[in-house]
Amino acid sequence: MIEPASDAVAPCCPPLTERPFTADEAETAARMFKALGDPVRLRLFSAVASHEGGEACVCDISDVGVSQPTVSHHLKKLKEAGLLTSERRGTWVYYRVEPSVLAAMGKLLTIAPAAV
Amino acid sequence: MIEPASDAVAPCCPPLTERPFTADEAETAARMFKALGDPVRLRLFSAVASHEGGEACVCDISDVGVSQPTVSHHLKKLKEAGLLTSERRGTWVYYRVEPSVLAAMGKLLTIAPAAV
Repeated sequence: MIEPASDAVAPCCPPLTERPFTADEAETAARMFKALGDPVRLRLFSAVASHEGGEACVCDISDVGVSQPTVSHHLKKLKEAGLLTSERRGTWVYYRVEPSVLAAMGKLLTIAPAAV
Repeated sequence: MIEPASDAVAPCCPPLTERPFTADEAETAARMFKALGDPVRLRLFSAVASHEGGEACVCDISDVGVSQPTVSHHLKKLKEAGLLTSERRGTWVYYRVEPSVLAAMGKLLTIAPAAV
């Protein structure tokens, strides 16, 4: 099942340079940044994001030097943050990057013209 | 003194969707994401980034509901991650967003055409 996690987080937040974030905006955006704030998690995310077809199963991305339970743990965290969706097909669970969330995070980091 | 923190981190890393990150790339990029992975830190960063002239002193941005030592602690973390630079002028230390680092982080989150 593909989870609609992106619907909850995608609309979040103006560019960081536009105006001070509210507490709610900061909570939402910090959750996404925190999910990418771990080197192993970032490598796994990058491995999924750059994999052929934009999706990967655990079997494709387990070469980052940690155990498979650890890989699964990190993928779960990335899902909880809305950065990945997953779908079981047969034996394997396939992970896919949520492009709208990536776009929303990218937007946060654009520099508002007034701030330059 | 303006610290040249950006020189060390700005060149980091292709888009996350381009190819799997190496361990070194992941270390560098995760440090930046982690710095923004805390709601209070993100509010402070946004307050500096959106402040008039693109810089602010602690006196300008202390309304996020935490003590001034806590504010200073978080600003220090943001500096260590290369996201802010600081300069003492008279009584106050002024903080400024490092645009090249923001741009580098934004680049990480762009979606490589091959991955779409």
